[in-house]
Amino acid sequence: MPRPEGCFAHEIRVTWGDCDPARIVYTGRIPWFALDAINAWWEAHVGQGWYQFEIDRNLGTPFVHMSLDFRSPITPRHRLVCHTWPEALGETSITFGVEGEQDGALCFEGRFVCVFTVADRFTKTPPPQDIREIVTPHLPRLA
Amino acid sequence: MPRPEGCFAHEIRVTWGDCDPARIVYTGRIPWFALDAINAWWEAHVGQGWYQFEIDRNLGTPFVHMSLDFRSPITPRHRLVCHTWPEALGETSITFGVEGEQDGALCFEGRFVCVFTVADRFTKTPPPQDIREIVTPHLPRLA
Amino acid sequence: MPRPEGCFAHEIRVTWGDCDPARIVYTGRIPWFALDAINAWWEAHVGQGWYQFEIDRNLGTPFVHMSLDFRSPITPRHRLVCHTWPEALGETSITFGVEGEQDGALCFEGRFVCVFTVADRFTKTPPPQDIREIVTPHLPRLA
Amino acid sequence: MPRPEGCFAHEIRVTWGDCDPARIVYTGRIPWFALDAINAWWEAHVGQGWYQFEIDRNLGTPFVHMSLDFRSPITPRHRLVCHTWPEALGETSITFGVEGEQDGALCFEGRFVCVFTVADRFTKTPPPQDIREIVTPHLPRLA
Repeated sequence: MPRPEGCFAHEIRVTWGDCDPARIVYTGRIPWFALDAINAWWEAHVGQGWYQFEIDRNLGTPFVHMSLDFRSPITPRHRLVCHTWPEALGETSITFGVEGEQDGALCFEGRFVCVFTVADRFTKTPPPQDIREIVTPHLPRLA
Repeated sequence: MPRPEGCFAHEIRVTWGDCDPARIVYTGRIPWFALDAINAWWEAHVGQGWYQFEIDRNLGTPFVHMSLDFRSPITPRHRLVCHTWPEALGETSITFGVEGEQDGALCFEGRFVCVFTVADRFTKTPPPQDIREIVTPHLPRLA
Repeated sequence: MPRPEGCFAHEIRVTWGDCDPARIVYTGRIPWFALDAINAWWEAHVGQGWYQFEIDRNLGTPFVHMSLDFRSPITPRHRLVCHTWPEALGETSITFGVEGEQDGALCFEGRFVCVFTVADRFTKTPPPQDIREIVTPHLPRLA
Repeated sequence: MPRPEGCFAHEIRVTWGDCDPARIVYTGRIPWFALDAINAWWEAHVGQGWYQFEIDRNLGTPFVHMSLDFRSPITPRHRLVCHTWPEALGETSITFGVEGEQDGALCFEGRFVCVFTVADRFTKTPPPQDIREIVTPHLPRLA
């Protein structure tokens, strides 16, 4: 599914320490960047990130899947803009799309699936109503 | 494709610092573990890892794809055994499978695709002959 | 030496993945934050960070010393403000002070010593003149 | 205080992803390695690391200080041997020394001070008696 126009963008300051001897960002760092972008999506839209979900609401959103395609190398020469949007909201799961862009070039695109859980029991649960209501208007419309 | 019997196993000592407030390994660390296992596969079979490939042989193997399914949480209570094998060897690419297991439970399974490159030019290249010869006998046989 | 009034402040977005099972930032992450702040100091004042120093100017600034005192825990509930300033500039070295503050509380204070090197030879060198001129006015004055 | 003869050694497999564009381990990774070595000291001597301390015993050992001197660069070409020993045991604190060595060369030396806490209250406490008894014989003797 293509990235929705004007979706949330999270900017990452790429640094020297993110890079490997090939002088580009180490592959192992890239999923970390994407996760930071998803957490920032939650913070921007719900006013709470994973930390507050877990500790204040006993709500977990563990990942059950991720897949990424790496399109071009990332360096510290430009900020990395992570376009981030919810792609689907199921009974007990949510899918996010993330596209990382730098200086106008697509660097990676990824899809991430999380399930909602009762954090201290690690059992699946439907998302709280406020979260469902916040996420729904951001979902891509079917044509 | 199922994991080949008796394939290479790389053991990871999971620690406190790998875990998040949910008291399990942070998702962002898991691709990192899988990459460590793939690098260890190279070291064990070629006697060189990514560092030596790049610096001594001008050979890069950047990732173009990764996908992971997370099956159960990882904790520091047991070593994480990463079963690692080459799944396919193309003209200029290689695919690895990695399965992480802890205390007998499957924690994650992933597939990773790398391309071979001339490191200082960042252009695709077929793998060197010695690497092709080392990898080939480890590939799963077609039935 | 006390922190100079109005010195450079680098803001860090602390996240879930930075925290350990004690629900506070893992100690191992804190030097990393301080290094990010020092690199940001360079970017803000010279227009180049470690990456550009190394690759565009063949200039290295490896660390020879760091010491940190940890005063109070860091969490994702507030931005971490890293107050950062050069404390001393020697013939071939520079010392930085970094103080991390969160919600008005001092979280850590650290001192970091780097030497200037010719990057590809790994030998000490005096800093380039433009860097000396940029750093000098920021050094604390003797009373 | 000099390193005691024959003290505990924790071996670290340094990898490509630990290195920065200068082709040596990134400074921000080195405290992390030292912490891994201290945690491994606990595991080897008490049979429990920080994770078990916190979760099974409600015992925390947060760091209040660290200082490191960096003597020579670390690369993936050799294992990093971290010699690790308790240097002092106070009423409510413990000091560790760590020296990282690679291919016979000293890479870094560090000192780390932790306090014992009641984990869920974050208040200082004397260490449990079994821990005091395990640590004491490893302390350097006064001449």
